[in-house]
Amino acid sequence: MRLTTFTDYALRVLIFAAAHDDRQVTITEIAQTYGISHGHVMKVVQLLANAGYLKATRGRSGGLKLGALPEDINLGDVVRITEPDFRLTECFGPPNGCLISRYCKVPGPLNEALGAFLSTLDGYSLADLMIDDTKFRGPAKPDQILRGPILDPA
Amino acid sequence: MRLTTFTDYALRVLIFAAAHDDRQVTITEIAQTYGISHGHVMKVVQLLANAGYLKATRGRSGGLKLGALPEDINLGDVVRITEPDFRLTECFGPPNGCLISRYCKVPGPLNEALGAFLSTLDGYSLADLMIDDTKFRGPAKPDQILRGPILDPA
Repeated sequence: MRLTTFTDYALRVLIFAAAHDDRQVTITEIAQTYGISHGHVMKVVQLLANAGYLKATRGRSGGLKLGALPEDINLGDVVRITEPDFRLTECFGPPNGCLISRYCKVPGPLNEALGAFLSTLDGYSLADLMIDDTKFRGPAKPDQILRGPILDPA
Repeated sequence: MRLTTFTDYALRVLIFAAAHDDRQVTITEIAQTYGISHGHVMKVVQLLANAGYLKATRGRSGGLKLGALPEDINLGDVVRITEPDFRLTECFGPPNGCLISRYCKVPGPLNEALGAFLSTLDGYSLADLMIDDTKFRGPAKPDQILRGPILDPA
């Protein structure tokens, strides 16, 4: 089970913009800082701007700023729009050819689990994820610390 | 966000074996019933047998049976072993090159959300997913009903 790289990058973009809220940031700067693809960041920025989470200004002195207060950028909402789908099993989204779809009892627990996942994220906003701008001074080391997953039964 | 086809098929195999608990079932029969790849089902069966969820008997009269009572086959446990990883973001598993890993506050909410997802599934067992053997008759129709995802905020 994974989130897409798209969601990962969307969170990084928002965290970067939040850390530099005294000025506009650029796609090139974000891509270079994280060492990730410029094209990918551009697509992420486009979606975040369409959703109102970023505000883009064109021109020589243009750039990106947060389009809302960090406390109004809800983590669950961001993930709902950045993930292309939540197709946990075949019957969650077309095409679906599973013979037992009509009778199967798997979707109940899976929808409940998905709801629990998203509800948890709904409890957080970008304000909870903020770090200061000094944390972006690099470079990234080859062996960065791992931060998950935690799979222990509750 | 998706579960793998491997997990999807693992659940189908267990549901099929549970529905036919008066006899042994075969990989060929499972693959044909669901219209899915024989090779894929074989790999799924191998893992489920290694985990003790299925018991395989070799030979002409051989086949597969559940290796435990349905109520002892926990849904969360199954998903924990059938998913190859739970790498929600880059920093969840090697390789990780994200510059801000050491300071980033994203893993907290993500681990909590993953925990909520798996804890929900921990509340269910194969006994909750059982359907009777009549539900496996008849060819799958091209447009099967969709069963998810449910994305409403809680």
